[in-house]
Amino acid sequence: MSDNHSKASDVSPIRWPDDHLELLDQTVLPDEEVWLECRRTEDVAGAIRRLSVRGAPAIGVAAAYGLVVALDEVPADATAGEFDAHFEDAARYLAGTRPTAVNLRWALDRGKAVFREHRPAGRPAVRQALFEWAEGLHADDVATNRRIGAHGAALFAAGDRALTHCNAGALATAGWGTAVGVIRSAWESGKVAQVWVDETRPLLQGARLTAWELKRLGIPHRLVTDSSAGALLSRGLVERVVVGADRIAANGDTANKIGTYPLAVLAERHGVPFYVAAPLSTIDRATPTGADIPIEEREGHEVTEFFGRRAAPLETAVANFAFDVTPAELITAIITEVGVLKAPFGEAIAQAFAAKEA
Amino acid sequence: MSDNHSKASDVSPIRWPDDHLELLDQTVLPDEEVWLECRRTEDVAGAIRRLSVRGAPAIGVAAAYGLVVALDEVPADATAGEFDAHFEDAARYLAGTRPTAVNLRWALDRGKAVFREHRPAGRPAVRQALFEWAEGLHADDVATNRRIGAHGAALFAAGDRALTHCNAGALATAGWGTAVGVIRSAWESGKVAQVWVDETRPLLQGARLTAWELKRLGIPHRLVTDSSAGALLSRGLVERVVVGADRIAANGDTANKIGTYPLAVLAERHGVPFYVAAPLSTIDRATPTGADIPIEEREGHEVTEFFGRRAAPLETAVANFAFDVTPAELITAIITEVGVLKAPFGEAIAQAFAAKEA
Repeated sequence: MSDNHSKASDVSPIRWPDDHLELLDQTVLPDEEVWLECRRTEDVAGAIRRLSVRGAPAIGVAAAYGLVVALDEVPADATAGEFDAHFEDAARYLAGTRPTAVNLRWALDRGKAVFREHRPAGRPAVRQALFEWAEGLHADDVATNRRIGAHGAALFAAGDRALTHCNAGALATAGWGTAVGVIRSAWESGKVAQVWVDETRPLLQGARLTAWELKRLGIPHRLVTDSSAGALLSRGLVERVVVGADRIAANGDTANKIGTYPLAVLAERHGVPFYVAAPLSTIDRATPTGADIPIEEREGHEVTEFFGRRAAPLETAVANFAFDVTPAELITAIITEVGVLKAPFGEAIAQAFAAKEA
Repeated sequence: MSDNHSKASDVSPIRWPDDHLELLDQTVLPDEEVWLECRRTEDVAGAIRRLSVRGAPAIGVAAAYGLVVALDEVPADATAGEFDAHFEDAARYLAGTRPTAVNLRWALDRGKAVFREHRPAGRPAVRQALFEWAEGLHADDVATNRRIGAHGAALFAAGDRALTHCNAGALATAGWGTAVGVIRSAWESGKVAQVWVDETRPLLQGARLTAWELKRLGIPHRLVTDSSAGALLSRGLVERVVVGADRIAANGDTANKIGTYPLAVLAERHGVPFYVAAPLSTIDRATPTGADIPIEEREGHEVTEFFGRRAAPLETAVANFAFDVTPAELITAIITEVGVLKAPFGEAIAQAFAAKEA
């Protein structure tokens, strides 16, 4: 990583210190700052599955480095066929870790294209190309987030109190953050009076991670339970709701952390703008609408247990959907690195991609 | 308590085994079943304040017995003036424990009237009258809840999946429950396929208490985080939302556990009936609208700590509103012991009281 990049991101949950990948274990923050050494593909996949690394953009970058880890674990005496097969297996293995975040598949598809392009030049060459590509993706993500932040900050007015859900901060990306990045940029422009932080059950990414980031940044914030948004909005204590995204469909429907959709419904009722902040890589044009987004269902113990202690009676059945889908009609704007998209989102999204690819 | 009453309520969080009051400590359920001995007014007040006993109807009954506890702690050699002053002080002390639940004030006002009526007959007589009144209130509450249950069950259709928030069950009342009582009555009529139980942050009354009650009753249920309701409703997995109430204003606006209002907004969006189940004693005709209901704000550690372990960074500021207000326009029906009230609620409420007082 270049110095320039390190400066740009005060917190990045991903680093490659020497000859291996390290991921900041977000399951033990804010109590402990533990970096997980990832020298095997399964280390990377496990970290993604357990949510040690989480957030759609961060998962994408971690998976990109994961492909380099995969090449590095191939024995020197492997045949060409074994080398290629191992790469393919690793890509498939990493893709299977989380079904909803589209950046994961997006990064792996690009990584496979880099592999195909440079494979003819030999193993060291393709390994080097893939590593440089992953580093580039890492740096690009930070730059992308800063652009998202600048576009989003322009939507704010002085004195705004913003509510955010889950953690779409530096920890969810390669640095800077998407939703929290917007709030941070708006704060640096002197526009943010306070942030309401949803604790975000079941895994408390808001209480643990967003509160930790905002504290480091010195941005005033108050933590609330997820069900407090109705009271805050009806009392007129929120001027903006800003969230990230795990996948945005071609029509603008947005899958994000469970609890996002109720916020959008409440924001609409109270006439408060509801923003989704995400890079274009989170928009999946191959997914027509929200109904086509697969929603991950996670294990019940995430809901019933707190630090290993059970709250509910033994054997209580649980439904633990990781995400919900907010229909495009409830979204005031999607804030991307190429600008602020507004309804009709289908057209705005198509134009944004056309402009980027032009 | 009569045998008849004990049979009527499978679970009652309040009992008077001999010469003192005992309250089931709901802060340690479902792990432990601890009964708190209350021999001093401050024991009763402390139990209400700490939420060892909670739920508007249960608080009312506990406070009623609390007045008896107050008389029992007066030394035999106290003067008549000391006796009377102690009673007044105790009533005021108990009234100050929780600002939102109106049943508390309702019960204390009635208790004071009983005291005034029987005081001329001497100390043993007024103590006996007050005790019989408290026992009557206890038994009446169970009977009231069974009537609420029957009226509510009639609104259900076979196969309904009901979502409930917090615990408005037997534990929140003197027995049977209000919202859970409706679900229980509907279940006994063969109409309930499943119950969705909101865990109810911060104190997890849904996960700890409602799940425990439903398990005892053998009613199929699944626990969800509070922010899951949007996903459940948008997938068509909920046919009724049923909640209790801490105070209902004269116009039908309802204060209940924080998170109730978002459920009402979501239910309306998805065309699902939203019911409030509560005895008439929860309706405060002296409170014109929801804007006039005082909302208790509780300490931040309830949000930041789990079993004594902190989730958020140290010194994270918290806003912990205990209740929110659901405007009457979002309420499909208020289910009371005298029948199902519908909009316009102001009129329906006035008529219900007129009929009861007639």
